[in-house]
Amino acid sequence: MTADTITAADIRINARWLIPIEPAGMVLEHQAVIIQGARIAAVLPVAQADCEFRTRETIDLPHHVVMPGLINMHGHAAMSLFRGMADDLPLMTWLNDHIWPAEGRFVSEQFIADGTQLAMAEMLRTGTTTFSDMYFFPEIVAQMAHDAGMRAQVCFPLLDFPTIWGTGPDEYLSKGKALIDTWKGDDYIMPAIGPHAPYTVSDSPLAEAVALSERTGARMQIHLHETEFEITEAIEKQEKRPIERLAELDALGERTQCVHMTQVSDSDIALLADTGAHVIHCPESNLKLASGLCPVQKLKKSGVNLAIGTDGAASNNDLDLFGESRTAAMIAKVAANDAAALSAHETLQMATLNGAKALGREHELGSLVAGKLADIIAVDLSDPFIQPVYDPASHLVYSNHGRAVTHSWINGIPQVQDGKLTRIDVPDLMLRVKSWAEKIRQQQAG
Amino acid sequence: MTADTITAADIRINARWLIPIEPAGMVLEHQAVIIQGARIAAVLPVAQADCEFRTRETIDLPHHVVMPGLINMHGHAAMSLFRGMADDLPLMTWLNDHIWPAEGRFVSEQFIADGTQLAMAEMLRTGTTTFSDMYFFPEIVAQMAHDAGMRAQVCFPLLDFPTIWGTGPDEYLSKGKALIDTWKGDDYIMPAIGPHAPYTVSDSPLAEAVALSERTGARMQIHLHETEFEITEAIEKQEKRPIERLAELDALGERTQCVHMTQVSDSDIALLADTGAHVIHCPESNLKLASGLCPVQKLKKSGVNLAIGTDGAASNNDLDLFGESRTAAMIAKVAANDAAALSAHETLQMATLNGAKALGREHELGSLVAGKLADIIAVDLSDPFIQPVYDPASHLVYSNHGRAVTHSWINGIPQVQDGKLTRIDVPDLMLRVKSWAEKIRQQQAG
Repeated sequence: MTADTITAADIRINARWLIPIEPAGMVLEHQAVIIQGARIAAVLPVAQADCEFRTRETIDLPHHVVMPGLINMHGHAAMSLFRGMADDLPLMTWLNDHIWPAEGRFVSEQFIADGTQLAMAEMLRTGTTTFSDMYFFPEIVAQMAHDAGMRAQVCFPLLDFPTIWGTGPDEYLSKGKALIDTWKGDDYIMPAIGPHAPYTVSDSPLAEAVALSERTGARMQIHLHETEFEITEAIEKQEKRPIERLAELDALGERTQCVHMTQVSDSDIALLADTGAHVIHCPESNLKLASGLCPVQKLKKSGVNLAIGTDGAASNNDLDLFGESRTAAMIAKVAANDAAALSAHETLQMATLNGAKALGREHELGSLVAGKLADIIAVDLSDPFIQPVYDPASHLVYSNHGRAVTHSWINGIPQVQDGKLTRIDVPDLMLRVKSWAEKIRQQQAG
Repeated sequence: MTADTITAADIRINARWLIPIEPAGMVLEHQAVIIQGARIAAVLPVAQADCEFRTRETIDLPHHVVMPGLINMHGHAAMSLFRGMADDLPLMTWLNDHIWPAEGRFVSEQFIADGTQLAMAEMLRTGTTTFSDMYFFPEIVAQMAHDAGMRAQVCFPLLDFPTIWGTGPDEYLSKGKALIDTWKGDDYIMPAIGPHAPYTVSDSPLAEAVALSERTGARMQIHLHETEFEITEAIEKQEKRPIERLAELDALGERTQCVHMTQVSDSDIALLADTGAHVIHCPESNLKLASGLCPVQKLKKSGVNLAIGTDGAASNNDLDLFGESRTAAMIAKVAANDAAALSAHETLQMATLNGAKALGREHELGSLVAGKLADIIAVDLSDPFIQPVYDPASHLVYSNHGRAVTHSWINGIPQVQDGKLTRIDVPDLMLRVKSWAEKIRQQQAG
């Protein structure tokens, strides 16, 4: 071997175990991941890396699994400030009597900035490198995520009625177009369209959303078939299931992300499969609000792409996508009456590569493959109380929690090092969170 | 106030929040718990404690919830050495093709000692102070728990067929009687009878178990109505549901703990309620093995006492009873189609006082009340990534994991201090676990 075969690069990560997601279902041992700039230059055995690369920095992770960063495909980040404010209530009571009044009273630009930062801190700490958001003041969410160096799909909200962010559909659409214009083509921020739900958006704004998506390529994310009531009411009022109405409006397609889908008929599955629409599964929110169980195995067998989301911390009550993955794996089995319905490896793929597919970025996100962007996390499996480790994939899903994440990189830039956030000033954030909590607590008491 | 009103005591714990479990549904602030010897001497406001008590030691817990220690009502402790060995398989395949062969090959007295210690370490670290066990070599489990100062119900196994622990029912019963004689009346160890399941124990040994329970007062714990197959097979073979057969054999009563109960008819509920038998709910094992959903709300409404268990780490794959409680709270809602089916406070009661009831020790365990035994834990809620905290009960169930436990006492003796175990040598334990894991891994590969 001669010197000219040695390549210089930025970072080398030496991993005890590597779960690349592509190829599927594999656990490799003693691998090196080489990062050059924002991208993965190579994934190769440690011994081979010794011969082929010299890096500026080497990080040894002798008890860790290295894998792609998690992609949390649905949430309302700023609602973290409402975490645990109202529990054990059905969806409509929770929304009408608690969440909407609190939003009316507290949501402001500063609330969104602080709440979004709180959510990003928790997500980064627990292994998420890309998140999707749907909430008021999306322009602030986009800016906060960009400043933090976190990847985000930011869906602007679209509803029939006025909110703190606008007077109605016309204003939402016009502000949303501006959001898309500002961020289109950005590496971190993916602006998108967020029609809230079939029961809150009428045909005309939905058709405009579809046209906007077609014109700009922006994705559309919508809460869909979340509860039985949603279906019953739609059939009563419109004589069709909500997803059929979306299909008629050309709102179902490869750019559409359908969130929740706990109420799913065979014809619904056929519509999803035929159009290439994605399902975003939010198991814990669906359990906690008693919405229902998404038929993951049936959807998977029909070829529908399934990703995972935590939903907002107000209905979860955390943003730990590892915990969410565990719940997804467990309830898929009981929903299908089959313990093999969703394996640990398939679950990890849902939380990574399938999210990338839903975003239309599977060519550069969601797996550890040379040439992809360097969104990478490491999870320490040395905790004595999870020993022994026979299968790291099993442990990541069934014995793990997000706090075991020790490192993460987004675009090759460190976000978590030895369990500490590098780019968010946590003590300062805590002061702002405390101040919000005091205001909210007072109003609850009063 | 004169000096003679001041009482001397051993330990004072100053708690930011206190959840006493009795009275139900309460969160108190700035309370002191006074421990004298093995018992709780008083629970009172901090200012009042200043006037009334002087203690040898004072522990300030300014960001913590203090509550009774958790009671994990079902498990197979030593199976922690099989954690994550075989996942994503249905109950009978998992047992026949993986667990039973591995048990036949590896289970020995030393395996039980090391595996039980591993399980106790994890349980103590995550807030459990009392556990129930059902596994081979119960005399070793009892001794290990006693030596560690952990409270345990130790059920000796009873089956029709020979195992490593005995040749059949006669030997199991004779060894079991010896176990009961040895430990009867002990403060830490509650010897009990563990008929494995209706499909593995025939009428005659079951009747002997009932007689033994009546004679000694020992509790009986049995896997019951775990899967649909169990019911179908029993109806085919015996023309009755397993629980009906138990009732006919006088095996259902206040000393009976029925584990799993995912398949429950109205007449089953009536039988449970009439006889005063307890249900031990193991939600994660039931999900992971696709066994089914226990109808918690219906059972609760019928007055059946419901406690929680993790089951063994081989089908869970952890022994964190806080995580288990979260799953219990979430799936109770979807099982009942009612988001109010099981509140955070009710869930915490299941994991504490209801366990004490199932053990027949509710007069001295399961809540923080003066006179009860000092089995107490503290959970730190200051982690930045679970802020803000509006309702500590909500956080304990929905935003918490067992690693947030910082302190625990059993009989007033510290077991966890600042997150570290005081009485188990963890590095030494890890060496033994590593050695077992290597043997098991080799056999799997071979």
